[in-house]
Amino acid sequence: MKNNIKNLFYPKSICVVGASAREKSIGYEMLHTISHFHYKGIIYPVNPKSESLLGYRSYKSIDEIKDPIDLAILVVPKHSVDCSIDLLIEKGVKSYIVITAGFKETGKEGEEIEKEIAEKVKRAGGRLVGPNCMGVINTHNEIKLNATFVAEEPHSGQTGFLSQSGALGAAVLNSLRETDIKFGHFISVGNKADINENDLLYFWEEDDYIKTLTFYLESFVDGLGFLKPFITGEITKPTIVLKAGKTSSGAKAASSHTGALSSSDKVVNSLLRQFGIIRVNDINEMFNTAKGFENFPIPKGNRIAVVTNAGGPAILAVDTLEENNLALAQLSNETKQKLSEIVLADGSIENPIDLLPGADAAAFRKVIEITAQDQNVDAIISIFVEPVMVRPFDVVESVNEIKSEKPIFQVDMPLPEFWDKYRESSKKHLPVFRNPEDPAPVISNMLFYAESRARMKKTFEEYKELLELKTKTEYDFSPGFLSQQNIYKIADDYKIPILKNRIVTPDKLNSIEQNLFPVVIKGINKKVVHKSEMNAVKLNVKNPEELKAAAIEISKNFKSAGFEVEEFLIQPFIDLKHEVLIGGFRDPSFGPVIMFGAGGKYVEVLNDTAIKSAYLTNYDIDDMIDSTRIGKILKGVRGESSSDIDGLKQIIKSCSKMMIENPNIKEFDINPVLIGKDNKNYVADIRLKWES
Amino acid sequence: MKNNIKNLFYPKSICVVGASAREKSIGYEMLHTISHFHYKGIIYPVNPKSESLLGYRSYKSIDEIKDPIDLAILVVPKHSVDCSIDLLIEKGVKSYIVITAGFKETGKEGEEIEKEIAEKVKRAGGRLVGPNCMGVINTHNEIKLNATFVAEEPHSGQTGFLSQSGALGAAVLNSLRETDIKFGHFISVGNKADINENDLLYFWEEDDYIKTLTFYLESFVDGLGFLKPFITGEITKPTIVLKAGKTSSGAKAASSHTGALSSSDKVVNSLLRQFGIIRVNDINEMFNTAKGFENFPIPKGNRIAVVTNAGGPAILAVDTLEENNLALAQLSNETKQKLSEIVLADGSIENPIDLLPGADAAAFRKVIEITAQDQNVDAIISIFVEPVMVRPFDVVESVNEIKSEKPIFQVDMPLPEFWDKYRESSKKHLPVFRNPEDPAPVISNMLFYAESRARMKKTFEEYKELLELKTKTEYDFSPGFLSQQNIYKIADDYKIPILKNRIVTPDKLNSIEQNLFPVVIKGINKKVVHKSEMNAVKLNVKNPEELKAAAIEISKNFKSAGFEVEEFLIQPFIDLKHEVLIGGFRDPSFGPVIMFGAGGKYVEVLNDTAIKSAYLTNYDIDDMIDSTRIGKILKGVRGESSSDIDGLKQIIKSCSKMMIENPNIKEFDINPVLIGKDNKNYVADIRLKWES
Repeated sequence: MKNNIKNLFYPKSICVVGASAREKSIGYEMLHTISHFHYKGIIYPVNPKSESLLGYRSYKSIDEIKDPIDLAILVVPKHSVDCSIDLLIEKGVKSYIVITAGFKETGKEGEEIEKEIAEKVKRAGGRLVGPNCMGVINTHNEIKLNATFVAEEPHSGQTGFLSQSGALGAAVLNSLRETDIKFGHFISVGNKADINENDLLYFWEEDDYIKTLTFYLESFVDGLGFLKPFITGEITKPTIVLKAGKTSSGAKAASSHTGALSSSDKVVNSLLRQFGIIRVNDINEMFNTAKGFENFPIPKGNRIAVVTNAGGPAILAVDTLEENNLALAQLSNETKQKLSEIVLADGSIENPIDLLPGADAAAFRKVIEITAQDQNVDAIISIFVEPVMVRPFDVVESVNEIKSEKPIFQVDMPLPEFWDKYRESSKKHLPVFRNPEDPAPVISNMLFYAESRARMKKTFEEYKELLELKTKTEYDFSPGFLSQQNIYKIADDYKIPILKNRIVTPDKLNSIEQNLFPVVIKGINKKVVHKSEMNAVKLNVKNPEELKAAAIEISKNFKSAGFEVEEFLIQPFIDLKHEVLIGGFRDPSFGPVIMFGAGGKYVEVLNDTAIKSAYLTNYDIDDMIDSTRIGKILKGVRGESSSDIDGLKQIIKSCSKMMIENPNIKEFDINPVLIGKDNKNYVADIRLKWES
Repeated sequence: MKNNIKNLFYPKSICVVGASAREKSIGYEMLHTISHFHYKGIIYPVNPKSESLLGYRSYKSIDEIKDPIDLAILVVPKHSVDCSIDLLIEKGVKSYIVITAGFKETGKEGEEIEKEIAEKVKRAGGRLVGPNCMGVINTHNEIKLNATFVAEEPHSGQTGFLSQSGALGAAVLNSLRETDIKFGHFISVGNKADINENDLLYFWEEDDYIKTLTFYLESFVDGLGFLKPFITGEITKPTIVLKAGKTSSGAKAASSHTGALSSSDKVVNSLLRQFGIIRVNDINEMFNTAKGFENFPIPKGNRIAVVTNAGGPAILAVDTLEENNLALAQLSNETKQKLSEIVLADGSIENPIDLLPGADAAAFRKVIEITAQDQNVDAIISIFVEPVMVRPFDVVESVNEIKSEKPIFQVDMPLPEFWDKYRESSKKHLPVFRNPEDPAPVISNMLFYAESRARMKKTFEEYKELLELKTKTEYDFSPGFLSQQNIYKIADDYKIPILKNRIVTPDKLNSIEQNLFPVVIKGINKKVVHKSEMNAVKLNVKNPEELKAAAIEISKNFKSAGFEVEEFLIQPFIDLKHEVLIGGFRDPSFGPVIMFGAGGKYVEVLNDTAIKSAYLTNYDIDDMIDSTRIGKILKGVRGESSSDIDGLKQIIKSCSKMMIENPNIKEFDINPVLIGKDNKNYVADIRLKWES
C-alpha cells in the first residue's frame, strides 16, 4: 500500500486519461506541464480522438496501453471518471490522481459517486488523490514531475507542501519566481476521498528527500489521527500547518467549501501547539518558516543580535522579537570592544548594531562574524537597506559566506533589480527576506519545534500510558445529563473529591444533622440547569432555622419561574477564596479535550480558560494552569499563599482519564471547583452529559 | 512662517550646498536625483572646487549666487554646516534641509551644535528640516522635486509621507516599482531639530494636493500637540501612523536611536485611537490603507461580499474579516436569484461567491455588478487566482471599469508577468492587492476614520469644555504622596465621593462611636504603600472588642516587618461585590491620561485596564468601561442587576478634570473603587503623587 502513495511522486510511467490537443483546456495543460518540466519517466496520453499529442504517441483507450502504468492522472469529464477507473483497475493501476471536479463539493449526489469510486480503488488495493484537485509535483532530479496545470518550473527544495485548496496551490505556484519558494513535493488533495493529510505525514516522514512538512488545510479528516503520530514520536520532521477557517465566518466558509464539520479554532490551535506542530498565520509565514528549517541551523536559544545599516527598519525588527518570545541579546564587553574597532563612532555597538548607511560588504561580514562569536548571541538578523554607495548583492553574498553554527537571517530592502540578479547569480542562494518583520516568527517557530521535541521525548512514557488506556464498558448510564447518584459513582471511581452531600425531598429537611452546619442549600429540578439564574442557592446557612427559611425562599423562586423543587441538595459551606472551572468535551475530529480556567458565573465574560487534548502530561497540565490568569492567582500573588495546586492537577488528571476511557461522555463541567480560604480544592457538583 | 514650510515642497529655486562631482557621494547623488526627476525650478549647485556640475553652472560659494533662493539643501561635512547656514541666512534664505548627519544622534556635543543651528535659523525667521535626514520629494507636476539620494521616479499620488527614519524612507523608495506606492509629498525629518510631525499635520491639512497623511515615527516630539488638532477638528484628513518601538525592547532601541523619551505603547495606541488617528502595524498596512483612501469611496458599513474564482484564498480573506470588525454580508434572495443565472451550479451563490476557476472577465464583472447592487453589501473583495484559461489583466481591468458607489477591492494572485503589464498598460490603474489578507485591514481603517470623524463632530462641545479648562493654582501641596487631609480636600473639591474615615492614633481607638460599626481598620505608616502585603487591613470588624483585637494583630504584623503603626484608619465596612480601579498619570509626551479597569490586589495579573487621554467625553468613558471585562460584569451578567454606572462615570469625569487642571499631579490611583452589593460606588482611599 505504501508503494501506491510513493508512486504518486515517483512513478516510472504515467498515463494522462483525457489528455487533449485543445490549448487552455485542462487536458492539454496537464500534458503540456508534465512535458515542459521534463518528466524523466514515460508518458502515455489517452484520448479517443488523437493519434499523437504534443509529440507523444497517444492511445485511444486505456486497454491499448500494453506497458505497466505506475500512476494514472484523470482529467476526463466527471461522468467518465467512474468507467475510466474501472478500466484502469482492470489494467492493474494502483495509484490515481483524479483532477476532475464536480463531486462531494457540489452536494449529496456527487458525494455518493465520490465515495463509490474511492471504495472501488481501495478494494482493488489502490490509492487515490482527489477528486477536485490540481495534481502533484516532485522536483527530485531523477523524476521531475510537474503534474499540475501551472507550467512553472519549481526549483527543487526539501519541503513537502500539501494543499487542500487547488486554487491556493495554484496561487503559490504562480508566485514561485517572486517568492523563491522551493519544493520537494507538492500535492493538492482536493476532496480527500482517499488520500489525506494523515497519509502524507507518514509518507513524508519516511521519504529522505523531504525535510519539512507544510500543510494548507481547511478541515482535518481525523484530527486525533493527525496528532497521534506526534504523540508517539513517529513523526519527527518539522511540521507546519496553515489552517484556514480561524474565525466563525471563516469556519462557516471553509465548512461549506469542504463539507467537513469544523472544530473550534481554539481546539485546533491549542492541540497542534500541545504536540509541537507549528501553526502559522499566513502563506508567507508558512514558507518563510520552511525556508528557515531548510537552510539554517536551529538556534540554541532566543537571544537575537540585529546588525543593520538602517536604524528604522532595525527598530521594526526589534519590535517583532518580543512578540515572538525572543529577546534582544546583551552583547559581551569583549564583543563591543571588538566592534568599536570597526563600527564608526556615529554608529552603535549596542544591539541593534548600527553600521550606518556607508557600511560595505566587508564591514557587514566582519561585524557579523564578531557578533556570531559572542556567547550571549544565539542568532543574528542582518538588515540591509540599499544606499547609493553600496551594492546589495555584494553584501548579501558576503554574509552568505560566513561560516557559523549560528543562523544568520538576512533582510534586504534593495532596488528591485537585486532580486533577479540574486536568483540568477548567487552562489549559495540562501533565502533573503523582504521585510524586517519576517525573521522573528521564523526563529520563534524553529525554537518552538526544537523545544517541543525535547520536551515530548522526556514525557513520552506519560503519553504512552494514556494512549494505552482501554475503553470502559462497565457504565450503563442512560443518555442525557447524569443523575446525582451516577455523578457520585463516576466521581468516586475516578477519585474526583466530590463533597458528600445530602439530597432530601422538601419534607425531609429536618433530617440534616447539627454537625453538618454551616451548609449550602440548592433547589433541584432536573429541567433546571443554571441554578444561579433561578436564585436556587443559599450559602452559609448556619442552623436548622435558617435552613427552613432558605428552603421556603428557594421554593418560592422556583414557583415564580414555573417549576417545583423536586429535591434539595445540602452541602458543607466552603469559605470561598476562588472559583475555577474544569471541563471537557469531545471534539468531532480531535477527540477528548480538557479545559481549565476561571470559574463561577462570569466564565464567559472572563474568558480565561486554557484547553488541551485529554492526552496530557504533567507538563501540559502545568502549562494549562500557568497560561490562565486564575492559575497565576492560585499560585499566590503579593505574598499570598498558594492554593493546593497538586490536588488540582490530580483532579484534572482524573478527568482526562475519565474522558479517554468513556467515549460516551460528550461533555462535562465542574463549575466551580471551589478553592477555600484553607487553600483546599472542593468539588461541589459535576455536570456530565452521556451519549449512547 | 507657513510659507517657509511650503517652500520645502514648492521651491522655485534651490541651492545644493556641498554638491559634488564624485559619483556615489551624497553631494553627487543629491544633485543627480534632483536633475534626473526633472525639477521644474532653478538649481544652484555650490562647490568650492567646480565650475560646473552635471551640466549646471556651479558656484564656488553661496554669496556668488545673486538670484533669490527658496530652499537650501546642505550636504556639506558636519563641521561646515554651521558656517554654511550663517552665509545662507545672510543671503536671506528661509527654508533649509540639512542632510548632513553627526548631530544629536551621536551624543551631547552633537546635540548642542544642532540646537544652536536650529535656533539660529529660527531667529532669522526660517524653518529647518533635519539634520540627519534624507530630504524631500514633491511629485506635483509643476514642481517634480526629488531632493533625496534615491534616484527612483515616484509616481504622483495624493499621499503625504513623513519618515523619522531616513533608512526606512529609502527602503520605501527602493520598493516603489514593486509596491506601486504613490506619493504627493515625502519628507524625511531626521533629528527633528525644528520641523516635526506636528508641523506637517497643519501643512498637509491645508495643502490641496495631499489627501492622506502617513507618518513613520519612532517618537513624538509633543504627543499632546499631535492630538490636539484632531480634538479641535482642525485636522480632517485621514491620518495614518506607523509607530515603531511597540515592545519594550523596540522602545529602548527607538529611544537610543532618536534620543527621545518614549511613551508606553498602550498610551500611544489608545490615545491615537481615541481621536480617530489610524495606527497601523507595518509598512504594508500603512500604504495599503493610503491606497484605500486615495482610490476608493469609504464604505457605508462593514458588510463585505467576497467574490472569487478560488475557494482557499477566499476563506483566508473571510478569516481576516472578523479579526478586523467586519462581517460577511448576508446576500438578499434577489441577489442570489440573479447570481444563480450566471454562477455555475458547482460554484456558490452564497457569500463567499465562488465562480470556479473558469470564470472570465465578463463573469467577474457581471457578478460584482449584481452584488454591488445588494442593499446588504457595503464593500466587495474580489479575489482572482490566475488559472491557465483566463488572463488576469482582462479580469482586473474589467472589474476596474465597474461603476459603483461601493468600493471594490481586488486581490490578484497571478504569474509575475502580470504586474509589469498592469503597471504599464492599465487604464484606470486602481491598486491591486497581492494577498487575500490585505483588503480587510484597509476597509476596517477606512471605516474607523469615518466613524471617528462622525462621532467626534458630535462630541466637539464636550472636548471644547475640557480644552478650555484653566490650570488651578490654589493648591500648595508639598511634593510626594498627599497626606490623608489633602486627599480629602482635593476629593471634596472634585466631588469624588470619598468615604468619611477616622484617623486615630493607636491610643485613641476607643473614641470610635458604636454606630460606625461594622468597620474596616487599616494600619498606616507613611513608608508602607501596598497595605495588603503587610496584612495591615481587617474587614468587617463588628464591635469595639473586635476592633481592639484587630489593632493588636495589625501592630504585630507591622512590627515583624520592621515598622510601627503610626495611625489607624477606620472606615465603614462595605459588603463588597466588585473592586474596580480608577487611576491616572501624566505621560511625558501625551499629557494627562486616565485608566479604568479591574481593581483590587490582582490588578497586574488580571491586566484588565483601559486607558484614555484625560480629554475625554461621555462616549470615551463608556468605551473605556465597555472595553474591560469588569465593565461588562458591572453592567450585569446572567440576570444580575447593573451597578451604578452613571455614578462611576461621574467619578471618572471628576478625575480627568482634576488631572487636567492640576499639572502637578504626576499620578493617582483609586484602587479599589468598591462596588457594594447595594450596587453603589464607594471610594475608600486615593493615592496621589504631587510634583513641584
